[in-house]
Amino acid sequence: MKIISTERVPDECKNVIQVKDENLTDEDYRSAEILLTWPSRINKDLISKMPHLKVIQTFSAGVDDLDFSVVPPYVKVFSNAGAYSLSVAEHAWALILASAKGVGTKKRTIVYDVSERILLILGAGGIGSEVARIGKTAFRNYVIGISRSFKKPEWFDEKHSMSMLKEKINEADIIVDTLPLNKQTRNLLSYDLLKNVKRNAIIVNVGRGETVDEEGIYKLLKERPDVRFATDVFWRKNGKEEFYNTKLWELENFTGTLHTAGAYGNENIMKRAMFIACLNVKKYIDKGNAENEVKREDYV
Amino acid sequence: MKIISTERVPDECKNVIQVKDENLTDEDYRSAEILLTWPSRINKDLISKMPHLKVIQTFSAGVDDLDFSVVPPYVKVFSNAGAYSLSVAEHAWALILASAKGVGTKKRTIVYDVSERILLILGAGGIGSEVARIGKTAFRNYVIGISRSFKKPEWFDEKHSMSMLKEKINEADIIVDTLPLNKQTRNLLSYDLLKNVKRNAIIVNVGRGETVDEEGIYKLLKERPDVRFATDVFWRKNGKEEFYNTKLWELENFTGTLHTAGAYGNENIMKRAMFIACLNVKKYIDKGNAENEVKREDYV
Repeated sequence: MKIISTERVPDECKNVIQVKDENLTDEDYRSAEILLTWPSRINKDLISKMPHLKVIQTFSAGVDDLDFSVVPPYVKVFSNAGAYSLSVAEHAWALILASAKGVGTKKRTIVYDVSERILLILGAGGIGSEVARIGKTAFRNYVIGISRSFKKPEWFDEKHSMSMLKEKINEADIIVDTLPLNKQTRNLLSYDLLKNVKRNAIIVNVGRGETVDEEGIYKLLKERPDVRFATDVFWRKNGKEEFYNTKLWELENFTGTLHTAGAYGNENIMKRAMFIACLNVKKYIDKGNAENEVKREDYV
Repeated sequence: MKIISTERVPDECKNVIQVKDENLTDEDYRSAEILLTWPSRINKDLISKMPHLKVIQTFSAGVDDLDFSVVPPYVKVFSNAGAYSLSVAEHAWALILASAKGVGTKKRTIVYDVSERILLILGAGGIGSEVARIGKTAFRNYVIGISRSFKKPEWFDEKHSMSMLKEKINEADIIVDTLPLNKQTRNLLSYDLLKNVKRNAIIVNVGRGETVDEEGIYKLLKERPDVRFATDVFWRKNGKEEFYNTKLWELENFTGTLHTAGAYGNENIMKRAMFIACLNVKKYIDKGNAENEVKREDYV
């Protein structure tokens, strides 16, 4: 099966799959059955050049940027979920701890302790499982997971489906949102859901901005100065994630990073993630199936 | 033995020792043999009112604020080292991770990963050991300790004395200073010591400001934008720790908290720490000795 990539892949990829990743010709596009790419590269033009396309493997973990309306229904899409998990989980803990200790405030800020606290994790995939592991091992957290499925159930003290969210959210000292953005998760963390969170709760978002209701979290943080919120992901406005275009920065109980979790500027992490995408393509070629097949109905 | 405290102690203290902590009279001072207090409260006046004083137990972990010149040589001083260890170790990891991920910069900052890195810890007492434990369990760090003694040797892959510092410092990806301030440690982290640290090294100070040479670290950070430094402790100028009076805040590869590690504003942590001081006094009464006897020669 002919494989092409819109990006240069790391050398080690070429040890596991045969992939053309430079000087792509119209014939390369025409004959390719597997496409390695970023979701934002997918558009009508590209797809119309690829009549034999069977599989799209993304380099990104999330596919909410992908325009499914231009992808024919018989094309399978595999995400790179998990490839950045450890790095994003480190980032989630950076946001938890920075919030707890007031790093970046340049003021004397009351410190919260994180050890032996109740940690609630939304989404127990690769990232959520690593966040749980760190909380369990380093900080002896009691870990509650809310998820459709659990990638590493051993790190969770309680495992629940989404239907238990409303009940469990008020038990948590630390809430970490690792959710992908889809129809079910949009604006899930609303004012109404969060209004009775515990005193001194810390809320962190490393999923997607839109899983949190922007007005709702602002209202909560204004009303509850004891609650602290930190995010790496922001809301898209006119199709573009807007880091600075939010009132949250005015608040002392807010901090954030600018969608850098994962691998921003870090070539080593990026290479590793791209290699993982290549390994998944190899799996597809060898076995006819692979990890992280995207459920199109979650997005369309 | 009569015990007095210059501060109100938590109720649980009174279950383990008999201590007078309010409405102290001249007679209370005159007859007391054991004094619970903060180091900064010790002065000539207080000491001269206490002819029977045998033991000072501090509520603080550090005693570098204590004016030893007014304390008679036969008075034993016990610090509260370790009482805030877990909380300070959390804080150290907050500074490590915030530096690694650029939290607080409000810019898109290259992320460093911390897992499976070499972690060098200066001072392997209560705090250093907890920092090591977190690194070992959560982030699979290879942990090198440089210390006079090791409180929990099991968390260190290598254990060295101070004489190995110059050699080991350049092996580390993450360097955590948990040192007390004394004659041996003042300005220990100089430009000369640090000038060849690894690319993308993260340096964190939760010990005392003066263990790092202020001009030296500034010069290093100017020369090496890849190196990141975060501190909770600052340099005393005219006897007062000056949080803002340092050029470091101008630098993008610097961040800090304002000496809040331990228990700032957190009554629960503070109560627990005071209770640990009371337990140490009980140990002294029961056994004639206790933990954390201060080596006066380190300070005088």
